[in-house]
Amino acid sequence: VSVALSKAREFGFRTVGCASTGNLANSVAANAAAAGLESYIFVPADLERAKILGTSIYGARVIGVHGTYDQVNRLCTQVAFKYGWGFVNINLRPFYAEGSKTVGFEIAEQLGWRMPQHVVVPMAGGSLICKVQKAFKELARVGLMDSSACKIHGAQASGCSPISTAVKNGWEAHRPVRKPNTIAKSLAIGDPADGYFAAKVIRESGGWAEDVSDEEIAEAMALLGRTEGIFAETAGGVTVAVTRKLIEQGRIPRDEEIVLCITGNGLKTQDAVADCLEKPAIIQPSLEEFSLLAKDAMEAALV
Amino acid sequence: VSVALSKAREFGFRTVGCASTGNLANSVAANAAAAGLESYIFVPADLERAKILGTSIYGARVIGVHGTYDQVNRLCTQVAFKYGWGFVNINLRPFYAEGSKTVGFEIAEQLGWRMPQHVVVPMAGGSLICKVQKAFKELARVGLMDSSACKIHGAQASGCSPISTAVKNGWEAHRPVRKPNTIAKSLAIGDPADGYFAAKVIRESGGWAEDVSDEEIAEAMALLGRTEGIFAETAGGVTVAVTRKLIEQGRIPRDEEIVLCITGNGLKTQDAVADCLEKPAIIQPSLEEFSLLAKDAMEAALV
Repeated sequence: VSVALSKAREFGFRTVGCASTGNLANSVAANAAAAGLESYIFVPADLERAKILGTSIYGARVIGVHGTYDQVNRLCTQVAFKYGWGFVNINLRPFYAEGSKTVGFEIAEQLGWRMPQHVVVPMAGGSLICKVQKAFKELARVGLMDSSACKIHGAQASGCSPISTAVKNGWEAHRPVRKPNTIAKSLAIGDPADGYFAAKVIRESGGWAEDVSDEEIAEAMALLGRTEGIFAETAGGVTVAVTRKLIEQGRIPRDEEIVLCITGNGLKTQDAVADCLEKPAIIQPSLEEFSLLAKDAMEAALV
Repeated sequence: VSVALSKAREFGFRTVGCASTGNLANSVAANAAAAGLESYIFVPADLERAKILGTSIYGARVIGVHGTYDQVNRLCTQVAFKYGWGFVNINLRPFYAEGSKTVGFEIAEQLGWRMPQHVVVPMAGGSLICKVQKAFKELARVGLMDSSACKIHGAQASGCSPISTAVKNGWEAHRPVRKPNTIAKSLAIGDPADGYFAAKVIRESGGWAEDVSDEEIAEAMALLGRTEGIFAETAGGVTVAVTRKLIEQGRIPRDEEIVLCITGNGLKTQDAVADCLEKPAIIQPSLEEFSLLAKDAMEAALV
């Protein structure tokens, strides 16, 4: 988004915007505020409160649209054309997409300028997974790495899995999902703009794709938290749960190096895990009360 | 926290914990999960849901205590002694405190190894502001900077302002606040452990302290969002609002270089600003509906 809005300023746009399932909204609004641009952000009207608040706070005008992401996106295309505004995911899309190569560059950099054997990437519009591969190829081409060989796997939620369904069925192109239905709202794009290319990248790299249920997503969010100390949003749960599934299927050998792209903050989708977590014990400020509680917990642990 | 838990492992602790108004809780729980330590986190029972959820997610045992932070803290001292556990803000406190020098080191590093003319630091227990100064002094002593001269200002909420009240009245020691009452819960420590030293650092550096109302805090959170693209929690609002006040009072000249320490993520305290922000407009996915909306907005802007 930072790359896209830097280009927007260069082109002389004064108003920018996007269609978004939430995370892009937050980022466009924040970067527009920092760059001194006005912003109009279009989101599905049923979006999580945290994602709407995390957009309004930057002084953006937020428009909730009754409809799916795909309907929101079509409206934005019309608005961009009529008003001459710069939309990050429409007329500024090439720069936004190139900017997401940063994820691939940083994976290589953090590994000391080499590839992992596997990367697992969540898929919404399907752009990120393509650009991660592009980043690897560019690094190899300029000689910063010996090879760009890396199996690239895609992760989706079963409630909206056009790309993983295409990969698993051996279809060349995805078939749109009309009514996405998943807690992973940030991935709920039924007709992904780069779906065709995402499936192609997966096939060519020797990777695979899978999708997981809402229950598996929430469980994986808790697993990531208690084992790694990372609190990710639902999309992160999708990536972790899909990785586990691919390991169980033998698609990813468990002793090979795997990088997971965790792409959003868990504070944005708290409702998704609220029910799976233990509620706090409530006590008076007394050592006796705590000792009773701890005794019960320790005895339970021994049993 | 990372420094403190590294030392905890070195000392052989297997269980760690803290008393917290929320942010320390999140950090101790996350770092304990990553380090493979068990954790018990004690918080006031009325804490924001996001801060409790953002602790439970890491597999920590969360204990909500009916009482103020100061009561929670006293209970933790007893628990640490009885069970032999490592508490970040009690028996591990020296390492936790030294670790917070990182904030001072990073300010200097990001400015190219020199001091700003002013730093404004939020104050809860009063430790951070002391360690920022200590970091500056150490950098000067080892020759990485020419001087450690920098006016250090402290920020509190009026609903719990023991340190700023002491500074403004010229008292050497603070007087405890029995019942903190502010939306800035992460700063609501009525009897700050390092209050005496915080007031001393402020006085010696030539800085000052102020405190602000809940309304000023919420306004400042929105101001920071729409001008800088940063969504901070209530403590960030305190720091911004106090800075504005100190500029208005002439305590900080408006043309001097000022660094503000923004110390928490706004997604943790969404309720604090929810009412100050414009609600999204809701429309059908139609260009006509958007055009009407935009026309009204543009006409309103012209009037």
